[in-house]
This record gives sequence, structure tokens and C-alpha cells, in this order.
Amino acid sequence: MSTLKLPQVVPSPTQDSERLKKAFQGFGTDEKATIWVLGHRNASQRKQIRETYHQLYNESLIDSLHSELSGDFRNAIILWTYDPPERDARLAKDALKAKKKGIKHLQILAEIACASSPNHLMAVRQAYCSLFECSLEEDIVSFVPEPLRKLLLGLVSSYRYDKEAVNLEVAKSEAERLHEAINTKQVDHDHIIWIFSTRNFFQLRTTLACYRELYGNKIEEDINKCGNGDLESLLNVVVWCIDCPAKYFAKIVRDSIVGFGTDEDSLTRVIVTRAETDMSEVRVEYEEMYKASLDDDVIGDTSGDYGEFLMTLLGKGM
Amino acid sequence: MSTLKLPQVVPSPTQDSERLKKAFQGFGTDEKATIWVLGHRNASQRKQIRETYHQLYNESLIDSLHSELSGDFRNAIILWTYDPPERDARLAKDALKAKKKGIKHLQILAEIACASSPNHLMAVRQAYCSLFECSLEEDIVSFVPEPLRKLLLGLVSSYRYDKEAVNLEVAKSEAERLHEAINTKQVDHDHIIWIFSTRNFFQLRTTLACYRELYGNKIEEDINKCGNGDLESLLNVVVWCIDCPAKYFAKIVRDSIVGFGTDEDSLTRVIVTRAETDMSEVRVEYEEMYKASLDDDVIGDTSGDYGEFLMTLLGKGM
Repeated sequence: MSTLKLPQVVPSPTQDSERLKKAFQGFGTDEKATIWVLGHRNASQRKQIRETYHQLYNESLIDSLHSELSGDFRNAIILWTYDPPERDARLAKDALKAKKKGIKHLQILAEIACASSPNHLMAVRQAYCSLFECSLEEDIVSFVPEPLRKLLLGLVSSYRYDKEAVNLEVAKSEAERLHEAINTKQVDHDHIIWIFSTRNFFQLRTTLACYRELYGNKIEEDINKCGNGDLESLLNVVVWCIDCPAKYFAKIVRDSIVGFGTDEDSLTRVIVTRAETDMSEVRVEYEEMYKASLDDDVIGDTSGDYGEFLMTLLGKGM
Repeated sequence: MSTLKLPQVVPSPTQDSERLKKAFQGFGTDEKATIWVLGHRNASQRKQIRETYHQLYNESLIDSLHSELSGDFRNAIILWTYDPPERDARLAKDALKAKKKGIKHLQILAEIACASSPNHLMAVRQAYCSLFECSLEEDIVSFVPEPLRKLLLGLVSSYRYDKEAVNLEVAKSEAERLHEAINTKQVDHDHIIWIFSTRNFFQLRTTLACYRELYGNKIEEDINKCGNGDLESLLNVVVWCIDCPAKYFAKIVRDSIVGFGTDEDSLTRVIVTRAETDMSEVRVEYEEMYKASLDDDVIGDTSGDYGEFLMTLLGKGM
């Protein structure tokens, strides 16, 4: 469930555009007003605001936000203002362009492929082609080394069946196939990639449950025993995103907060990309896993307009 | 260009539905009227007729056609009446369900993947999931043996960049990569599959031209030297479909006609699937390649309502 709060009476896109334009005028920017408008509108409302703003002022709302704001607040609100498929296409491009492409970047591609609906993933691929004049797959082949390349390519190319259709026999036999691959340290075998990239999410969750039942361990633990390279880390991201996206994203929020300093990019990404889908579930899992309040932890680790904007997406302030 | 001929004033979907209903009533069926209506309507008009017919008579037009008609004529007109993505999803399913899945069946999947626009291929995958409760990719993994499986899976999963964007350096280096794979008889290497399934069609055509320039041969000839198994045959289908779909389909028409008897399924498939896209070009290539008229050859090899319907799609009779 979404944590986004919408006003009972939503102003027209023209009123919202005028409010934003006013917030940008004169000395300084009225950040509070910017948060108040954009932080309380859903994806289709934001789309209408982008279009209306462009018609009224002949400039892009994104460009205006870019020139008026700064720092993590700017990054967060711009990411939020994009159409979700465009947002994820840009996140994917940034991940692939990163100089040192570790698992921290490449996991973003696995999130998009495994914690989104099949139709959303398709829309991301379409947006990627429109924005960057090449396919997402071409960039993966160009920028990601083996053995991660083959896995990511399979995952982003998937268009899974979208409804609950589970075959227990298949789940059992594929759990066995996964176990065999782990035991023989062949987790990048084509067959393993096909299982993770062609099966529907309900089927895969059953396969993971069968695995636990048959072998007594979670598959993640066995994958870890197999090695601690990037392939194993990425495979575990895939397993978590498929098995329970809310738990996975709770962990990303936690990791971005604990320790010295904050990983704002990760924190922003989770809250912006999940606020409209399953952020309520992420909050519940966070509390369960860390015996702490996600909201309190976000407040404690952020400040200023940035913190206020994230908290707005988490449902505060209306 | 399309060979389909539409009337200057197109009757309303209600008028068309009533005409069809009348054609089905009483003893026998008025096949001529059925051809006259459906054979002169484009995909979106046929869609409106399907919807209106269903609203008016509470039965599916496809079901009515099925019970009223028979033989190759029925197969052809039903295939034509489906929405194009549903039509191709059904062709793919039939190809995968065929008991003896030779290249003759599997080439249909390569056609859908390599001689369609990226958006059409995506729509086919969506239709496949809606119709058959699993993904096209799952069925390929289940029903197609290696080494064809990996190639087909890559091809149908592609979402290529759709505009002309060619990098000559890439074309040259990938032509070399292809040559090396052929020389070492490793045409099912992952890298070869990535080239054919991620690059845009313009880029790939340039790569094939580079190949000819660098090595003096068409790549098809070198692939044939590599072996004469199903993999080589399928790869050649892929190359033809990418390089010049009109030539490829001219050849399929020719093969379906020459020799003893006619391969109606192939003939129907080509004319039905290409009539609205590039059947004019197929006709020109046919004449060029075989010094014969495609229309005369189709007339000579078909008869009755079936022949008349195919000729209608080829632009005759209005």
C-alpha cells in the first residue's frame, strides 16, 4: 500500500502549476510550497502538472526544479516528478554509467526487473529507448561484465505472466535444480537464469518455499556458502526482490541509515520508488526486522527540506 | 506497403456485422459476402467489427466463422480476423505445440521476433500471457531443445531501439565477431545471440553489409558451411528476416507453392501477416527472385473461396 497522502479536493493542474511557478519566482525558492504541491500528488496528477506547466510557461518543470533547488532535496523531488517508467529508466542509466559498477549500482537493475510489475518493466524499457537512443539490453551488454551480464540481461528482458498460476511439481523440480546448481557452484548456468527470468513471481515464491522445505535452509544462505562475489550478491538481491520486496527495501533503507553518514541516494530511491506502491509494507517489515520505527530513523538521519520531503512521501504533514 | 484495398466509404461496424450475420444465416454460408466484408477492412476496422458483432449477437465473430466455414479458407479468414498481436501469439503457440517441432515451425517464432516492430513483438508477448496463462519465454524453455532454445529466447525477449542509429565501428567489430564464431563453429555463443537480439535492425543490416565487404561472402553462405543442422537453418532465417523481410517472405511463398501440392499453412501465414505491412515489397522481390508473378502463382496453386480470399488480401477485386 501507498504511503502517499492526497488532499481531499485536489487543485487543478493549472492551479498547481501556478503555485509552483510562484514558488520559483523572486529571490530564493519557496521549498515548502514545492513540497506541499508535488509531495501530495500521485503519478498521473504529477504527469498532468508537468504537461500543464510546460504549456503555461513554455519550460519544463524538471528544468525549473533543477535550476531552483539543490542537493539531495533536488535529486529527490526531481526523481519523484518524473513519470515512473522514465524515472526508473534514468536510474538504470545512472547505474550503468557509474564508473565503479559494483553490486550497489547493479542491484538497481535487479530491483527494476524483479520488484516491478511486468508491464512496468516493459514501460521502463520503452522509456529507456526513447531517452537514450539504444536499448537497455545493449547498454547492459556494453557496460556489465560477465557473469553478472547474462543474469541481468535475462532479468530485464523478462515479461512474466502476471497472475497467480503455480505448478507445485515445477516448483519442486526447479528447487532441486537450484540446489544442484548451488552445490556444483554453477549458479550462472543458463537454466538458473531461465528459472529466475521466465517464471511468474507466484511460481518463484513457491519454488523458494519448496527449497526451504526440502533443504532446511533459505536459498540465500546456501548461495552465500557458494561464494561471496558479485554474482552471489546479485542473486541474493534477485531472491529477496522476488520473495518479499518489502523486506528487501526495508533492508536497503536500514543500510542507508546505519553507520557513519547517510547514503542519501539509496534512501531517496527507496522512498521515491516505493511510496506509491508498497511503502506501508516496507514500514511494517522495517519495524519487524529492526525493532525500530522507520519514520523515526528517517527523521533522525535527514534534515531540512530533504527530510521534510521524504517524510511527506511517508504520509506526514497532511 | 500494404496490398489491402479498402472501400472509399467504409460501412459502419454495425452495417458490417449485420452483413456478416446475414451471410451466416439460413442454409449454407455466403462466403463471398464474408470475403467482401472482412477482406477489405484494416486491423482497427476488424477490431470494431469483432466488438460490435459480439455486442449485437452475444456471440464471438471468431466462433461464428469457425462454425460456418471450413478448411483452408476458414483458417485463413479466422487468422485474418484476430487482432494482429493475438494472431501472432496463436501462431507462436501452435508452432510450440507442434508434435515434431522442426525448423518449419520454429522459424515462425523467428519471424515474429525479427520481422516485426519492437512494439508489435511486445504486444504479442502480452497477448500470449493473456491467452495462455504463461509467458512465451516459459513455453520456449519448456518445448524447444538446445541450442535453438537459447537463440529463440534471446530473440523473442528483445525490445530493440526502433530508430535508425548506426555505429560503423560497432558494425565492423561485430561482423568480425560473427566471422570468428562461424570459423570456430560457435554460432550459439552468448555473444552472437546478444548481437542478434539486442541490436537495432538498422545496425544489424550494417553489420551484415560489413560482413559481406570484409569477407566477400554473404554471412548465410558461411553459416551454411558451418553446418546444416537446425541451428544454422534458424540463424539463416534470422539473418534473412533482419536483412530483408520482403525477400524472406517471397521465399516462403515460393517454397509453399513449388513442388507437389501446396503448403497452405505457410502461404496463408505470409499473406495474412504481411498484407497490411509489406506485401507490395514481397510481390516485387518475388518477381525479381523468381522471374514470375506472385499473384499468378497464387492463383495457379489455390482455388475456390480460399484462393479468392488470398487474392482479395493481395488487392484484387475492388
